[in-house]
Amino acid sequence: MRNSKVVTLEEAIRRSGLRDGMTISFHHHFRGGDKVVNMVVDKLSEMGFKNLHLAASSLSDVHAPLIRHISSGVITKISTSGLRGELADAISHGLMKEPVVFRSHGGRGSAIASGELHIDVAFLGASSSDELGNACGYSRSENAKSICGSLGYALPDARYADHVVIITDDLVSYPNVPRSISGADVESVVVAESVGDSSKISSGAIRDSKNPRDILLAKQAAKVIIASGYMKDGFSIQTGTGGASLAAVKYIREEMIARGIKASFALGGITAHMVRLHEEGLIDRLIDVQSFDKVAAESLRDDPFHQEVSSVEYASGKHTGSATHALDIVILSALEVDADFNVNVLVGSDGIIRGAIGGHQDTAADSGLSIIVVPLLRGRIPCVVPKVTTLITPGSGVDVVVTEYGIAVNPARPELREALLSAGLHVVPMQDLVRGAEEIAGEPDPVPFGPRVVGVVMNRDGSLLDEIHEVK
Amino acid sequence: MRNSKVVTLEEAIRRSGLRDGMTISFHHHFRGGDKVVNMVVDKLSEMGFKNLHLAASSLSDVHAPLIRHISSGVITKISTSGLRGELADAISHGLMKEPVVFRSHGGRGSAIASGELHIDVAFLGASSSDELGNACGYSRSENAKSICGSLGYALPDARYADHVVIITDDLVSYPNVPRSISGADVESVVVAESVGDSSKISSGAIRDSKNPRDILLAKQAAKVIIASGYMKDGFSIQTGTGGASLAAVKYIREEMIARGIKASFALGGITAHMVRLHEEGLIDRLIDVQSFDKVAAESLRDDPFHQEVSSVEYASGKHTGSATHALDIVILSALEVDADFNVNVLVGSDGIIRGAIGGHQDTAADSGLSIIVVPLLRGRIPCVVPKVTTLITPGSGVDVVVTEYGIAVNPARPELREALLSAGLHVVPMQDLVRGAEEIAGEPDPVPFGPRVVGVVMNRDGSLLDEIHEVK
Repeated sequence: MRNSKVVTLEEAIRRSGLRDGMTISFHHHFRGGDKVVNMVVDKLSEMGFKNLHLAASSLSDVHAPLIRHISSGVITKISTSGLRGELADAISHGLMKEPVVFRSHGGRGSAIASGELHIDVAFLGASSSDELGNACGYSRSENAKSICGSLGYALPDARYADHVVIITDDLVSYPNVPRSISGADVESVVVAESVGDSSKISSGAIRDSKNPRDILLAKQAAKVIIASGYMKDGFSIQTGTGGASLAAVKYIREEMIARGIKASFALGGITAHMVRLHEEGLIDRLIDVQSFDKVAAESLRDDPFHQEVSSVEYASGKHTGSATHALDIVILSALEVDADFNVNVLVGSDGIIRGAIGGHQDTAADSGLSIIVVPLLRGRIPCVVPKVTTLITPGSGVDVVVTEYGIAVNPARPELREALLSAGLHVVPMQDLVRGAEEIAGEPDPVPFGPRVVGVVMNRDGSLLDEIHEVK
Repeated sequence: MRNSKVVTLEEAIRRSGLRDGMTISFHHHFRGGDKVVNMVVDKLSEMGFKNLHLAASSLSDVHAPLIRHISSGVITKISTSGLRGELADAISHGLMKEPVVFRSHGGRGSAIASGELHIDVAFLGASSSDELGNACGYSRSENAKSICGSLGYALPDARYADHVVIITDDLVSYPNVPRSISGADVESVVVAESVGDSSKISSGAIRDSKNPRDILLAKQAAKVIIASGYMKDGFSIQTGTGGASLAAVKYIREEMIARGIKASFALGGITAHMVRLHEEGLIDRLIDVQSFDKVAAESLRDDPFHQEVSSVEYASGKHTGSATHALDIVILSALEVDADFNVNVLVGSDGIIRGAIGGHQDTAADSGLSIIVVPLLRGRIPCVVPKVTTLITPGSGVDVVVTEYGIAVNPARPELREALLSAGLHVVPMQDLVRGAEEIAGEPDPVPFGPRVVGVVMNRDGSLLDEIHEVK
């Protein structure tokens, strides 16, 4: 190869022209197994960089080492979809001077495409790359060390960042095609011992539930879908990562077989559940911005009808070709839902950040039928509340809330309420659910919020939706 | 579909915000069968537009109707890779006030990516599209009317144009994936009776030769490759569209089988010849910016290891990830080669434009071994000349010139000359070939060029390489 781009991480950073105050970006396709963020920021710290803006597609508990780099001034600003674990805890308690900017996946894609979120240097982990930077979230070589499947959240970074560094744990011979990221968009390639622990890509928010309450909720959600009229031949669906949401797929599948209908596509974070339906011929195409488990990642690698898409193509509100605009049904989970159908998936009732916006805002707004599946309480903590602790998804985009105590339908959708009633479903006013939760749990103590703003929540269109205050 | 982008052509043009003086673009994947350029420019004329800059990836004899639109002032500037037929003839004789700008395919990609060639509205023909604009050069539906395979030359337009209109003759259900052009990059979709006659995609420059001289030249080119040392396991190759160049594939295949070696990839305009070698396991990957026949187009549709690439990814000199940077061997044809190894593939010895730059500049400059296959004369017209009529590919990038009277090696490559001599090939000084042609044909009459510049030839880096004068 006459034009190899392979260099050390330090050399890649030097070549990138990175300076103090600039914006660096990362994807979170390895979720809890990610090794790239810490590796790169450790090196940036060692090289003496200060005052950087870290713009990740999301961050999780594996990124606790960032606390040290925030304290020492290497990182002074963060943009992300979510925060979890020690890092989230520290930030909730006021670790950073500048508020964290939270965006949905579609909102981040839009912001990058429009230049509102300008990335100077993107550091993108890949499970394979050739010397010219053609890179994937999987490898076809026998030396494959990791797999994460879709690199959908990294694709806007690759396209719009001024400088792109691929970090890979499997350097393969040119041409590494089919590929996710084109070498034409890449400046340097760095070989690392490991970019991620693939066994953890299904960690974090995703869990396969055996919880009887989840199964009850899943059955109710499936009944809502069946009764809604949206489930007809050629329909499309996205399910979130909550246990009930995933469990609902099972009942939907049974109904599809019984009625002899097929879906045109499943969207979003793709799971083994969806791959199975696709392989059974029940779903024509998989549109994958993020592979939620190894089965999905391998399917993306091996099946041409399992299509990787960027977060822009997935869910941008500003790009009318994005897939959410064609989405019929989405099932989503929540930390809290309130009397106005507003949803919070980011901040616990204790005020501590413990989640991620993900595609919640995007899919709720664009889909034909959005269903929030949520228990009335988790332990002694009400999940249906008078007012959400933090506004993430405006109630205007939420059609149905399914709880184990009944199903609430947004008053803006009276025809949907009729359809569910006709099907004999237990439809109740939202206020009844709010009151019910309050009766069981009592009125919660107010969260001891301080004056400082530690996070701002953006709506997918770039407008400010809410602020998150420090917890004292 | 709640957000269909399907409108009439007139409505798409209105929505695009196109104004007099702006730049419109087209691809030429249907080659002689293209129906989109004439359809759109007819409509623009009808709607009263004037003074437009038509930036096509190439134009051919099917575009003769543009003469009328140039005469009437609808089109006042043209950028293209090539011109043929009546249109080329009229332009060569001074039809346009402003010179036509000729760029290589890689040069056009670079110019679009850098903003040097800014496209206001791209009109891109596609053999299938869904209502959100996910579009391909093939269709999987039973209503498929056309096929052109790769949309590689249209991809930079789709990515960088301010406004993108897809014109398709097969509107299919969403999601039309895998796809070439993403709906996220598309504003409108227009359904037309036909976007192209697929039977003509292998017309134009491509011909499968039974000409004994072509076969002799092909054998010589294959011998040069074998003797050069570049043909070893994992090598890569591109062959042009000339008859000898295509015929050479046959001999290369035989040698590969005999020596038990495989190629890592074949690049460029992909032909049925290359598909065959790929399917036999002799070539690992096909990297396809343009499908040169129906077999290639169908292979692109059906084979995940037949990778479509944009002209930027194919051949940009400014993007170090482009595939030409990894190319070992290229066989190219020529209208003229001169004493300094400079090549002309655009303008006939009579001064009339009758060709296209294509990827000639790009592959010659970047490849390890570039071979020009050219007869000493065509009829009574010398093809090896003291000085090319028009400079298209600088001799610095040309390593070997193969003629039926001997093989000339660029003096900058003495080791290559030694290798060919050691293999017993008939290596001659370039001056001998020039003299030989002159002795047979006599000194040609000077072309009656006038003072007006009708075309400018850009080098792939954006610098001016030569000017083309009117023929009186």
